[in-house]
This record gives sequence, C-alpha cells and structure tokens, in this order.
Amino acid sequence: MNSTIRQLQQHRSIRKYKPDPLSGEQVRAIIESAQKASTSSNMQAYSVVGVTGAEAKRQLAHLAADQQFIEECPLFLIWCADLLRLQHACAPVEEVRIPATTEIFIIATVDAALAAQNAAVAAESLGLGVVFVGGIRNHPKEVSEVIGLPKFVYPVFGMCVGYPDQEPTQRPRLPLETVYHRETYSTDSYAQGIEAYNRSLAEFMRTRAGGTRESDWSREMAKRLNSRQRTHMKSFLFEQGFELQ
Amino acid sequence: MNSTIRQLQQHRSIRKYKPDPLSGEQVRAIIESAQKASTSSNMQAYSVVGVTGAEAKRQLAHLAADQQFIEECPLFLIWCADLLRLQHACAPVEEVRIPATTEIFIIATVDAALAAQNAAVAAESLGLGVVFVGGIRNHPKEVSEVIGLPKFVYPVFGMCVGYPDQEPTQRPRLPLETVYHRETYSTDSYAQGIEAYNRSLAEFMRTRAGGTRESDWSREMAKRLNSRQRTHMKSFLFEQGFELQ
Repeated sequence: MNSTIRQLQQHRSIRKYKPDPLSGEQVRAIIESAQKASTSSNMQAYSVVGVTGAEAKRQLAHLAADQQFIEECPLFLIWCADLLRLQHACAPVEEVRIPATTEIFIIATVDAALAAQNAAVAAESLGLGVVFVGGIRNHPKEVSEVIGLPKFVYPVFGMCVGYPDQEPTQRPRLPLETVYHRETYSTDSYAQGIEAYNRSLAEFMRTRAGGTRESDWSREMAKRLNSRQRTHMKSFLFEQGFELQ
Repeated sequence: MNSTIRQLQQHRSIRKYKPDPLSGEQVRAIIESAQKASTSSNMQAYSVVGVTGAEAKRQLAHLAADQQFIEECPLFLIWCADLLRLQHACAPVEEVRIPATTEIFIIATVDAALAAQNAAVAAESLGLGVVFVGGIRNHPKEVSEVIGLPKFVYPVFGMCVGYPDQEPTQRPRLPLETVYHRETYSTDSYAQGIEAYNRSLAEFMRTRAGGTRESDWSREMAKRLNSRQRTHMKSFLFEQGFELQ
C-alpha cells in the first residue's frame, strides 16, 4: 500500500462542484499526464476538447441527460477517438486513406480511455474531483456539432473536472474473485459473488438514499440490459468515418 | 506537481523482466485498484485473467507476434470486455438477452481500459513495470481458447507486469497543443505540431537505436495505416456475441 494506491482506491465520482476555475498549470499537469499513458503503436489516436464556456457547457449538459453538474463544473473534458490527426501526420509522406476497420475503432477508443483515466488520476492527486459522462453518447451528433468535431473523430465520453462540493460515500464493487480469473476464465464464483454483492449494494443504496430506495445489482442490471440504449451509435459512427468493417 | 503526477509522467513500457514472481498482496493491490476505476452505470463490464503458468505464457507469447517478454514476465494480465457476468447478474431477476449493440461494445471496451490503466498506475507505484500488448488481437480466437473465454467475453489487450530488467528512455509524445483543443476541435496546430514531433521522434530514434534507425512519426504512421491490420476482428467479435448492431 502506498499513497498512489490509496488514492486510486478512494476514487468516487463527484457530481457537485464549486465554481472555482482551474489554473492553467493544473490543466497542463492533467493533460500531460494523460499524454504519457500507453498508446497503441504510438498512434496517439485520441484528442481531448476542454470546454469552459458557460453557453457550451449548458448545451452539453442538456444533451447529456440534463445533468446539472456538467454546467457547474469549471472544466468539461470531452475525450475523443481521433483518426483525423493521423491523416494529417501522413500527409508529408503520402496521402493515406484512413482504415475503417473495427480494429482501428478499438485502438482509438482504447487510446482515449487510457489517456482519460490517467487524467482522472492526475486530477484527483491535485485534490480535484471528476465524473465520467457516458451521457454525451445520448446525442453524439449534436455534441459533435457543439465542439466542432470533424469526420474521423468521435466523442467517446465526457469528464467533469473541478473542486468537489460534496463528499459522497464510495459505492462498493464486486468481490475481487468475480472479476479476477486465475489462469483461465471461470464462472464458478459468479452465483455466490453476485449474491454477496447484491446484499452489499442494497445496503449501500438504503444508507445513501436514506432508506427510501430499494434495489440491488441484479435488478439494476436487468433494467439496464432490457433497455436497448443508444442504438443510434452504429449509424452515427458510420457517418463519422468509423465504419467498423 | 506531486509524486503521483511525477509517476504518471515517467511511464515507459517495460519489455524485459526479471523472473521474480509477484506476491499475492501485490496482485491484490493492483486488481483492487483496477476495480475502483469508474465504470459505466456500475456495470463493471470487464474481467481480467491473470496468467502465470509457463506453458500458457509461452503459447500466448507465440500468438502475440512472438514477443518474448510475455513469456518472461511473471504475470500476464488479459483484460477482457465481459457481458457474460451481467447475464449471470440478471439471472435471479429474469432471463435477459445480452444486447448486441455497438453501444454496449463501447461500454465494455472502455470499462476494461479504465480498469487496466488504474492497474498499470498501481503496479508502477509498487516499483513494477508494465507493457500493454495489443498483439493478442493478432489471433484473438486462439488466445481466447488458451484462457478459456466463453461467448460474450472478448480479449481487448494484454498487459505484462513484473520487475523491470531494463531502464528504457521515455519516448516523446506529441506537443500538448496538438492533442488538447480549447473549447472546439481545431486542426490549426497540426502542421507545425507534427513537424516538430517528427524532429523530436527522429532524434529519439537515432539516439535509442544507436544511429542506425532513420524514421519519424509521419513515416511510421503512413506505414501503419497503409497495412489494414487485424481485419478478422469484426467476424471474431460477431462470433463472441458482440454483433456491433
């Protein structure tokens, strides 16, 4: 155990922010940390758009399920998979047609996620809080218009960054044995692990929601999997040049 | 600047490992840190398989472009997008059909990447080194067989973990201005930023490879984008139940 691991293990999403802006040095430290994450074959196939303007944040909050904290946080980062810069990179050598494979979609999406997680860790080490916002995929086309994303770039998720104005309890995770498999994948631990997790999450929900909310993981996940969410993603990605061939 | 940010910014991939095994406490600290990463709607849609067996590592090294360090490292983690555990989660409530959308593919792939990056940070904080291995996608079906992956699970990338037996120089990254966009996406910095990066990467290559290797980012990327890599991914994913609808 050390201070970095302690910090990683204390992570919780922040959904209420003080209005205080970040300094240029803070933003630079966060983005430089993101850049040092591993990237597939040094392709660096991602970009990040930092939004601070009130009107843009208001629009983005509205597009992402009206989540108020997007408007409140001083910096809203939108992490994008980006193949366009690679096309520019090749230009001095030859004109290259961007591949439209599923493989390059994975590369760019993973590159964006690895960089973003480093940014989250860096931000928290500075006493800031973050929350990932998948909700920008509710209306990815409109989000792309607000921040001017061209073809060959797509917004994977957003991330609020700012000074926390709440101290939320950490939500429990699945027992380690149900996530970590030794040597080969096994479902042996699932029935028992999920049962234990249902109990601990139900307890957490009761405590956090003041005894009014009754749920557990199984019910939450069944509800979620039964609603086919964001079925527009395939056609949106196709339009952006990610054809998933 | 603080010790966590310093560590993030000193990251470099390790491709030569001492044979020393990791302790159970180390592995637990790494996986528990991974589990605390953000996850879309608490779906925790990933699993990680930890391989330590010599024969399995030998096979995996062979399948992943014969990269020797996979055989040498004491622990090879395979990070998987996992929808199967969600199906088990729903079982006590109702039988749920796993969605086959592009959206859920993104959720599970990003969940795996965020957890993996936390694991990498935790491992490095313990004095260990890591390298991400996209090469397992060269033969994803065979890799899945070695570690017994069932349907609704796919291997996103591998990660070697162990004590470094080398001290590699850090490869430079693109100038911050070409990756970070203020308020809206812009290509204005690309021509100049890529030119500067080509110079610094060429210099790095000359230094690291002892003056024999002449290349730069533009040439590397042109070569890479012209080879349509891993075109089998789409059909492999389809077979695994990720239909990208």
